[in-house]
Amino acid sequence: MINRIGKRTAVLPEPPVITAAASAVGKKEGQGPLGDCFDLRIEDSFFGEKTWEQAESRLQRTAMELALQKAGLRPEELDCVFAGDLLNQCIGSTFGLKELNVPFFGVYGACSTMAESLSLAAMTVSGGFARRAAAVTSSHFCSAERQFRLPLEYGGQRTPTAQWTVTGAGAVILSQTGAGPRVTHVTAGRIVDPGIRDANNMGAAMAPAAYDTISAHLEDLGLEPGGYDRIFTGDLGAVGSDLLRDLFARDGTDISPVHRDCGVMMFDRKRQDVHAGGSGCGCSAAILCGHILPELLAGRLRRVLFCATGALLSTVSSQQGQSIPGICCAVAISSGR
Amino acid sequence: MINRIGKRTAVLPEPPVITAAASAVGKKEGQGPLGDCFDLRIEDSFFGEKTWEQAESRLQRTAMELALQKAGLRPEELDCVFAGDLLNQCIGSTFGLKELNVPFFGVYGACSTMAESLSLAAMTVSGGFARRAAAVTSSHFCSAERQFRLPLEYGGQRTPTAQWTVTGAGAVILSQTGAGPRVTHVTAGRIVDPGIRDANNMGAAMAPAAYDTISAHLEDLGLEPGGYDRIFTGDLGAVGSDLLRDLFARDGTDISPVHRDCGVMMFDRKRQDVHAGGSGCGCSAAILCGHILPELLAGRLRRVLFCATGALLSTVSSQQGQSIPGICCAVAISSGR
Repeated sequence: MINRIGKRTAVLPEPPVITAAASAVGKKEGQGPLGDCFDLRIEDSFFGEKTWEQAESRLQRTAMELALQKAGLRPEELDCVFAGDLLNQCIGSTFGLKELNVPFFGVYGACSTMAESLSLAAMTVSGGFARRAAAVTSSHFCSAERQFRLPLEYGGQRTPTAQWTVTGAGAVILSQTGAGPRVTHVTAGRIVDPGIRDANNMGAAMAPAAYDTISAHLEDLGLEPGGYDRIFTGDLGAVGSDLLRDLFARDGTDISPVHRDCGVMMFDRKRQDVHAGGSGCGCSAAILCGHILPELLAGRLRRVLFCATGALLSTVSSQQGQSIPGICCAVAISSGR
Repeated sequence: MINRIGKRTAVLPEPPVITAAASAVGKKEGQGPLGDCFDLRIEDSFFGEKTWEQAESRLQRTAMELALQKAGLRPEELDCVFAGDLLNQCIGSTFGLKELNVPFFGVYGACSTMAESLSLAAMTVSGGFARRAAAVTSSHFCSAERQFRLPLEYGGQRTPTAQWTVTGAGAVILSQTGAGPRVTHVTAGRIVDPGIRDANNMGAAMAPAAYDTISAHLEDLGLEPGGYDRIFTGDLGAVGSDLLRDLFARDGTDISPVHRDCGVMMFDRKRQDVHAGGSGCGCSAAILCGHILPELLAGRLRRVLFCATGALLSTVSSQQGQSIPGICCAVAISSGR
């Protein structure tokens, strides 16, 4: 049995159903253009916890609990959960989900983690290895900023290409049966290294990976970009989105009518001082759960390609002079109508 | 289609074949009781690179290349690779495998990563989502020591319960067809938190998770421990192994005739000053590839349960006073004879 099409795409012969999804975001995200879409907007960056890392864990747990509530499921009805985050050793997920007591697969794809988790959960359910599985990711501006960049108290200046790590989490529940949007195809990403060394320009580091995966996906399925109502990238931001459109333009392809970027959508860049836009695992996860899936459910979108993007660096790799490779995982989701 | 048995175990209806595997280890590991089993023993901890992190990446790349050579495959004949390591943001895998140019799923399960990667690769191949997939992990004593513990130059004293992070990598190639041992079942691990706060006692932190997964697996399959020729845990070391046997003894079950621990097997504890034994993603990965799979191929073992164990902490979670939850993923492998 081979469930593949073209060179790089897996076909899900029994497309798993996304039976529920939920999102939780921070105050700034709640004030953005999509603020009303999210299930929960927290006012305080600590979310009642003692540290930002624990607040991030609680954000992830909250998104998961809300999704379970919506699905009318108890945690033990999940056969497994795929989860990840940006924190060293993925502690956001460990401490967020340990009380759930559900078999756990930890995933690391930087800001592409939601698409990676969703892909793995979808293949696991489609293959019959789980009846129901969840995919959850999170990021938190404060925990990311102090881990990757500078102490927040320092108040460092940000470059125009810099992005703002989203405080947010998204959780999706997939099932073999039920009603809802369906995951039909997965195109896993290759590690693409354009040689960028500026850790304040993640968009440029990730755009070639997005181009690589999206173009491979479209070729595998024999589609033009217009074969999808929308192609959502994760968090290329304004700089990376321009680069992605340029890369497709070289092939004579105009993706701009269908392309949208979650990093650009999350904030009002004129009003919210986020420079090139949002980023973080939680950015595309919250927008998937708060906006994209509801649009599919409502029938306003029928077929989308969800392409979360990640920059595969650490402070150590950057300090050792390594470049910043990118990755992008693409998941095709259909409204099932 | 539901390919599950009991409460927590996935059954692989078309069991993927492990067509090749390779290992590469450091000097100390090469001097251990299993030293001759490994494909490559490096003499210098830098392995010709400028940093230990880059040496770890090269170790992982080398194991992957050796496995591909043994299988007679070019990288592009792999549909995907599952990989992870202990370094922040998994840079060991990113920089180790980026030149491979193969669709990449990053995985984080601490020292359980080899069993997690192998599980996901096996389900992906069994479900037909990949014709061939690889699972690769690594660890490096020097990169781990300075990230998690102390500068090596400091020469800190080690407690009796401490373990020695293995410098090593293992790579496995799974295929839908071919000859070799087969992956028949996967039991994913839950996050189990016994409340241990001593980062120098990982064995105690992980033993309850190993007990949880192994007992669930045996119950799901209706087996006694003797249903397997060997049950290999990842890196419980001497302390964690004793605890695991005690936990089973409470149920009236003696697992000691079949239980072996890769952390205990890797070094001669009397001669090599490693205290409670080896640890790290590379420990169980190298022993799987260098010892367990060859024993299955030779027919000296017919049926084994490979249970890599992980301690889900970071320096930040420990500094913030969090406990150290453990996880254990179990993979049943049959010689196919």
